Amino acid sequence: MFNIDKLFEAVAEKGHVCVGLDTAAEYIPPTELGKQLSGAEAVLAFNKAVIDSTIDVAACYKVQIAYYEEAGLSGLAAYAKTLQYIREKGGLAIADIKRGDIADTASRYAKAHFEGEFEADFVTLSPYMGMDSVEPWLAYAQSKGKGAFVLMRTSNKGMRDFEYLEVKENREQGTENREKSVKRVYHVVGDKLAGLAEACSGKYGYGAFGAVVGCTEREEAAEIRKNYSNLFFLIPGYGAQGGGADDAALLLREGNGGVVNASRSLLKAWATEIKASGGDEKTVTNVFAAEAARRAAVEMRDAIRAAVRG
Amino acid sequence: MFNIDKLFEAVAEKGHVCVGLDTAAEYIPPTELGKQLSGAEAVLAFNKAVIDSTIDVAACYKVQIAYYEEAGLSGLAAYAKTLQYIREKGGLAIADIKRGDIADTASRYAKAHFEGEFEADFVTLSPYMGMDSVEPWLAYAQSKGKGAFVLMRTSNKGMRDFEYLEVKENREQGTENREKSVKRVYHVVGDKLAGLAEACSGKYGYGAFGAVVGCTEREEAAEIRKNYSNLFFLIPGYGAQGGGADDAALLLREGNGGVVNASRSLLKAWATEIKASGGDEKTVTNVFAAEAARRAAVEMRDAIRAAVRG
Repeated sequence: MFNIDKLFEAVAEKGHVCVGLDTAAEYIPPTELGKQLSGAEAVLAFNKAVIDSTIDVAACYKVQIAYYEEAGLSGLAAYAKTLQYIREKGGLAIADIKRGDIADTASRYAKAHFEGEFEADFVTLSPYMGMDSVEPWLAYAQSKGKGAFVLMRTSNKGMRDFEYLEVKENREQGTENREKSVKRVYHVVGDKLAGLAEACSGKYGYGAFGAVVGCTEREEAAEIRKNYSNLFFLIPGYGAQGGGADDAALLLREGNGGVVNASRSLLKAWATEIKASGGDEKTVTNVFAAEAARRAAVEMRDAIRAAVRG
Repeated sequence: MFNIDKLFEAVAEKGHVCVGLDTAAEYIPPTELGKQLSGAEAVLAFNKAVIDSTIDVAACYKVQIAYYEEAGLSGLAAYAKTLQYIREKGGLAIADIKRGDIADTASRYAKAHFEGEFEADFVTLSPYMGMDSVEPWLAYAQSKGKGAFVLMRTSNKGMRDFEYLEVKENREQGTENREKSVKRVYHVVGDKLAGLAEACSGKYGYGAFGAVVGCTEREEAAEIRKNYSNLFFLIPGYGAQGGGADDAALLLREGNGGVVNASRSLLKAWATEIKASGGDEKTVTNVFAAEAARRAAVEMRDAIRAAVRG
């Protein structure tokens, strides 16, 4: 069984929310920060509280390694322990590492993130160098069920620089079955990934490796969902970047086929609540922050479910 | 002074060789491996020996993080100490990390690799998500002289998948002064980087941020060098991937403007020498391996210098 099948089942049971553990020190309640010996320990304690409170409403967790790498080796130790804790609790962990390198280097990266201290259930990958930067990871789909989400059309403004470039048609790319008027770089990436998914398909019709598709460009969402029906999507861009539940729902298929990431809006829900109630930040504990994250996740889950039902 | 200026001066003085410290345990003489408490310690001891022996013939060092990450936290400790050792010895260190992420995440990555334990002089970056994944790193060019090499046209076969796609012309991209018949994704990346280089130019006419251009596609090399005259190139593909000194020389400008990476051919030069002489692997020490790496680096340096002279 591929992890992508487990993720499909988690979405069916718990909803579409991917809790992004992009935990900056400034997201942690100040009083809790002061209790710990180091910033990295405070991050880990906060993450554990959030994981405990959201495990039954989160389809999965995405851990953005940059927020840990920033603190050096101690930060990376907290990163490793966060992944371990998610997996111990029966959750699915996406390592947001956006690796993209070739051949032997890719195999070593795969070993680094699909085995040992940093073991995750999924990784994110960047396709710029080509499919020989994606394929070496596939061995772990066969041996351990591991999955990946490859950057396809992201949610940032800069995605127009290269992902969005219009390419000249090339019939070799295997696009015959795709309806579209304009072909862009991200379509070519998607075509390659769809081919890969066909060769490595899970029990619910999604390939072991999916794609990152942002929910910020509403007009293209239906086309993308239709043309890449065997790709499971990791969907950024919800909330702060402008995507709403309706936008995210356009990237889903029969109520499944994607998880929607939110990070800061969940991790800092405690600050929003305290501000709204006129309370004192200094009274906020990790337990309160974790409950606030849960409330925000439930609200997001319900909004997406409602949008799916139309 | 930008690090790119220091690199220019290092090339003028020491030649074009970038020593790639992609140090796998299997590259280390077996006897030396047995002497150390852990694989990571053996890697560090080997790296130090190679750095000591090549510091006067290496323009810079490129440390591929995947080879260290593979071993988890202890591997990353060896990575950090390798970077520190290069910089203590007065060498220039390129962290080959190929990061590519946006906004706040990019700033955190920049902090991770331009400050603290993992501080390097240069990093490598992947441009897929767009220029907002490159620009946040630029603050460190202004504050600390740091540099980056952004993937443009790499040396692997898969580069034809996306980098090489032909794009429809778009006059907005500022390509008026570029001679070319066909415009590809990598040209658009190069155009953006050339614009960046213009805004952040060092004393020798090269931008603080350069590009990764492989020396495996001979027929395009002269065009690339001519059209991107203000980009300093990090050049992979030498040796095992098929590029020769003549190919690399086509990517240089007036004898400078690029460094040529070699990893395994230098690190495993000891094995080549032992095999050629019919010697016993078990007699090989790190000192011998480091001297062999130096001999191979000198040979490579001289071959490139000869090719530059024509």
